[in-house]
Amino acid sequence: MDIAIVLFDYFTALDAIGPLEVLALLPDSTVTLVTETPGVVRSERSGLSLNVAASLDDVPAPDVLVVPGGPGQAAQMGNERLLDWIRTAHLTSTWTTSVCTGSLLLGAAGLLTGKRATSYWLAMDELSSLGAEATFERVVVDGKIMTAAGVSSGIDMALTLAARIAGDLVAQTIQLNIEYDPQPPFDAGSEAKAPAEAVEGLRSRSRFKLPATR
Amino acid sequence: MDIAIVLFDYFTALDAIGPLEVLALLPDSTVTLVTETPGVVRSERSGLSLNVAASLDDVPAPDVLVVPGGPGQAAQMGNERLLDWIRTAHLTSTWTTSVCTGSLLLGAAGLLTGKRATSYWLAMDELSSLGAEATFERVVVDGKIMTAAGVSSGIDMALTLAARIAGDLVAQTIQLNIEYDPQPPFDAGSEAKAPAEAVEGLRSRSRFKLPATR
Repeated sequence: MDIAIVLFDYFTALDAIGPLEVLALLPDSTVTLVTETPGVVRSERSGLSLNVAASLDDVPAPDVLVVPGGPGQAAQMGNERLLDWIRTAHLTSTWTTSVCTGSLLLGAAGLLTGKRATSYWLAMDELSSLGAEATFERVVVDGKIMTAAGVSSGIDMALTLAARIAGDLVAQTIQLNIEYDPQPPFDAGSEAKAPAEAVEGLRSRSRFKLPATR
Repeated sequence: MDIAIVLFDYFTALDAIGPLEVLALLPDSTVTLVTETPGVVRSERSGLSLNVAASLDDVPAPDVLVVPGGPGQAAQMGNERLLDWIRTAHLTSTWTTSVCTGSLLLGAAGLLTGKRATSYWLAMDELSSLGAEATFERVVVDGKIMTAAGVSSGIDMALTLAARIAGDLVAQTIQLNIEYDPQPPFDAGSEAKAPAEAVEGLRSRSRFKLPATR
């Protein structure tokens, strides 16, 4: 199983690293980080950059592609080289997946028309505008397209993917291996559950254009 | 608030990136990756390496230190330069923290004698042997030392830390920002909950010496 995780400048590191840690534990699989121009790829966080050796051309037909999101996604929406790679890879992939605003890139590539999909909670309107049936769930599967909600949801998505690919026991073993027994100190991880002040604070600073009321 | 995350070759990326994504969102704070010799630091996963610009000497007195774990921890247990840095930083830190087998490095530095602490589930005996009162909880706070269980628990720890540093609303806003509303497809993230076959599979391949029965 060849798994490619696509990186671009100003991606959100956890979007990519969560799935990577899970999928790297799949038996008989190889996870490769790929990027348009191999070299240093900067994350959203200053001081955090990765070295990516493989170009998009090096892995033209992965079995699984994972597209993370992050503020850098916006600059890629018109990058036809990247979008072409996503479209072409999707033709032969077993699974085409995204985390957070990575789903907007799947949408820009034209893969989500009429498909149920999710994204970062503040990006759901933009996801709709790209033709998807925006679905407020943490992990959404429509055919061979699997999309995850924001940032940390990539871990849940990757475990779901691991189970589909290799069975429940393998996925459960991976979950134990990364000791994923989440116990957040608060129950504030979604728009519905977080304090209104947290929701409004993030919404007011969002890079996404949002309706005044929802 | 100066926050230093200490990296070494063959660290587990998620141990470090989980806390980094949370702590980078703290107001008035700077997160710096530090390592013994600045340059490329390899993670546990082949093909995943980070560029680290700061040496240990560049950040001698962080307010918060975060020590991740991973297979590379074993090679650091006798690295007096690293252990001295941890000991010295701990003298003036507000919080001294670890994720996964990073707690074994706190133990090797002599910080855990008689302290309640946790670690990766397969490393709890080794944690005890370093003088700690090994505690099977996800996040353990004893004085200013905060230790987390395996890999993904660093996210829970960092949110706990964020609340202690900046208050509940800030931590809740960070939790929403990374959309941390965990919904794993299985409930197999701890030794007690995972299928016996998963537990035995990982135990039999563990790098830690374990008693024949527990």
